[in-house]
Amino acid sequence: MVTDRPDPGLYPPDRLDRAAAASAEAGLAALLLTPGPDLRYLTGYDAPQLERLTCLAVPAAPAGGKPFLVVPRLELPAAHASPAGGLDIEIIPWDETDDPYALVAQRLGALPGPVGLSDRMWALMVLRLRDALPGARQELASAALRGMRIRKTPAEVAALRAAGEAIDRVHARVPDWLRPGRTERQVAADIADAIIGEGHARVDFTIVASGPNAASPHHEVSDRVLLAGDAVVVDIGGTMPSGYCSDCTRTYMIGEPPPEFAAYYRVLRDAQQAAFAAVRPGVTAEAVDAAARGPIAAAGYGGYFVHRTGHGIGLESHEDPYIVSGNTEPLEPGMAFSIEPGIYPGPHGARIEDIVVCTEQGGERLNNVTRKLICVDAT
Amino acid sequence: MVTDRPDPGLYPPDRLDRAAAASAEAGLAALLLTPGPDLRYLTGYDAPQLERLTCLAVPAAPAGGKPFLVVPRLELPAAHASPAGGLDIEIIPWDETDDPYALVAQRLGALPGPVGLSDRMWALMVLRLRDALPGARQELASAALRGMRIRKTPAEVAALRAAGEAIDRVHARVPDWLRPGRTERQVAADIADAIIGEGHARVDFTIVASGPNAASPHHEVSDRVLLAGDAVVVDIGGTMPSGYCSDCTRTYMIGEPPPEFAAYYRVLRDAQQAAFAAVRPGVTAEAVDAAARGPIAAAGYGGYFVHRTGHGIGLESHEDPYIVSGNTEPLEPGMAFSIEPGIYPGPHGARIEDIVVCTEQGGERLNNVTRKLICVDAT
Repeated sequence: MVTDRPDPGLYPPDRLDRAAAASAEAGLAALLLTPGPDLRYLTGYDAPQLERLTCLAVPAAPAGGKPFLVVPRLELPAAHASPAGGLDIEIIPWDETDDPYALVAQRLGALPGPVGLSDRMWALMVLRLRDALPGARQELASAALRGMRIRKTPAEVAALRAAGEAIDRVHARVPDWLRPGRTERQVAADIADAIIGEGHARVDFTIVASGPNAASPHHEVSDRVLLAGDAVVVDIGGTMPSGYCSDCTRTYMIGEPPPEFAAYYRVLRDAQQAAFAAVRPGVTAEAVDAAARGPIAAAGYGGYFVHRTGHGIGLESHEDPYIVSGNTEPLEPGMAFSIEPGIYPGPHGARIEDIVVCTEQGGERLNNVTRKLICVDAT
Repeated sequence: MVTDRPDPGLYPPDRLDRAAAASAEAGLAALLLTPGPDLRYLTGYDAPQLERLTCLAVPAAPAGGKPFLVVPRLELPAAHASPAGGLDIEIIPWDETDDPYALVAQRLGALPGPVGLSDRMWALMVLRLRDALPGARQELASAALRGMRIRKTPAEVAALRAAGEAIDRVHARVPDWLRPGRTERQVAADIADAIIGEGHARVDFTIVASGPNAASPHHEVSDRVLLAGDAVVVDIGGTMPSGYCSDCTRTYMIGEPPPEFAAYYRVLRDAQQAAFAAVRPGVTAEAVDAAARGPIAAAGYGGYFVHRTGHGIGLESHEDPYIVSGNTEPLEPGMAFSIEPGIYPGPHGARIEDIVVCTEQGGERLNNVTRKLICVDAT
């Protein structure tokens, strides 16, 4: 948790007012947000998610009252010190033997409609709020906040760009750590150190999938020893002090690639480029997915591309928009997402992933480390 | 996430049957568990928490059917490779364009009672399951699982003991890193490295609260530079490859302690010892809290001990039982929890924390690094 170096540009002061208006538009009477990306997005407060209730209530505008933030008394100094302390929010502490759910309900009073809960709120809190507010049907806060969060502001794009540059610097060092005889876990530990060393506040994932593991798209890491002739899928990411995430995949070879691997790696690069080239305002998310699938299917590898093409990214590693068949949402400037096709025929596999932001002019890649196949000396 | 080195003793094969029976006893028709500690406790599967639904359904015994696990197809190899793959559970993959909530509802069929949701399930899933299972009232799975998870088996106590030994080794090295001129953040980075180096799979928190920050019980870390004359509260913990957590606090002095600090530190040690000595089967959780509060109040510092005495620990850093006024639950053998009184008068403060397990004979400390005040040379 990093609360002491927020970029004020990331948290425009009108965001709470816009959220209150968006809630009314979504038919919600109030938003109830526990620690997580929604709370951070609206207030800059990177609160810890604990069993003790921290909850921001945002009554819908214009009928509702002022937003208020209920926090355990222990967290009061951190809440005041966070950017939330500078907003027009009443911060209300509760003591160890108080019932904070009753406190929220009492402050909200009778609600004229449903409440929107942060998507990651724990069931523990969802059900206690349900019981404390029996008249208010529960919906997801994303009904109101999705439209705001999915369109990144220039300050948010800058934060994602900085995250992309940081993870690119890590990838630039990966070849040094890929040596026959080392385990995936040892390589992942080097990568984790570098993720922090290159400026992230937190390591989110360090996938090192070598040899046959490279054919399993969600393999994480194991004690398998790297061998000459391995393809190694390295899919890594972290969270910056800004709260914004990085996520980038490159596939490396130790020694010379088997002939078939080299052939489908080229197909994969073309597919990733084709999807990137498809990005522009008005194009649907599923059209970008289809653009990635086209070259792979044409080359006969369609059955080996077993996952969606990408996911949105921002304060969460995975968020809207999802680049997947069935998502007919048109892209808009400010949307940021991964483009990460993969081909997994076994006994090896490959994936290439960049974060891309949609601009008026088309796509902008936020990862720029080479997508050419890097073969690491096996000796 | 570490899935490849589970201790089979941690996952007795009868646990699913006991959970099904406990569900029936709690009046639940089924448990629905998404990734998190409940799922890991029952199956050993340390699944990632993602927006894609992974859900274990455990119908209540004896009326219900067999447990089944719904997973995204991408996660199928990991699910099979986990200890869950060796259990009598049907593992059902779903594809990117399927509706996994409808799949869960269809497999469960009509339910004769409420469902119990894992306490940390995201609202996103809670509300989709609510809509997919409109006839089943939602309760918390802890109604059934709490009684199992709160009483640690000998294998679980051994896992917590190993976690305690690992974090003790980190504390033994902390004095080397506390030097005037370094920042809290630099010290926390050294500690994070050592938490991994001493055997944890994940760093959970690294609180380094120096000088006036030591008077704020939930301060995390900042760029404040350490000075001679600082008290430094170091509250650190991680998660072992077993999934079990460590958590230990010591307060250090840089140079000589101010006279008042030395006086209340002694009171704090006595209070921590008094609470530890109170631990035995049949004593209530709140009586242990009161035992810690007694010496502190008697010495006139009662108003500066502003938090509960402790929290349970296991697969979560914070879980039942909570050692707090109002909790009249009697301790039982196998319960494991922190005892961590603090005194925060400002401009400095102190806290001492050990994990303690209740045995037939009384308490056993799982942290054994000295509780005497360690004054680090300021030069």
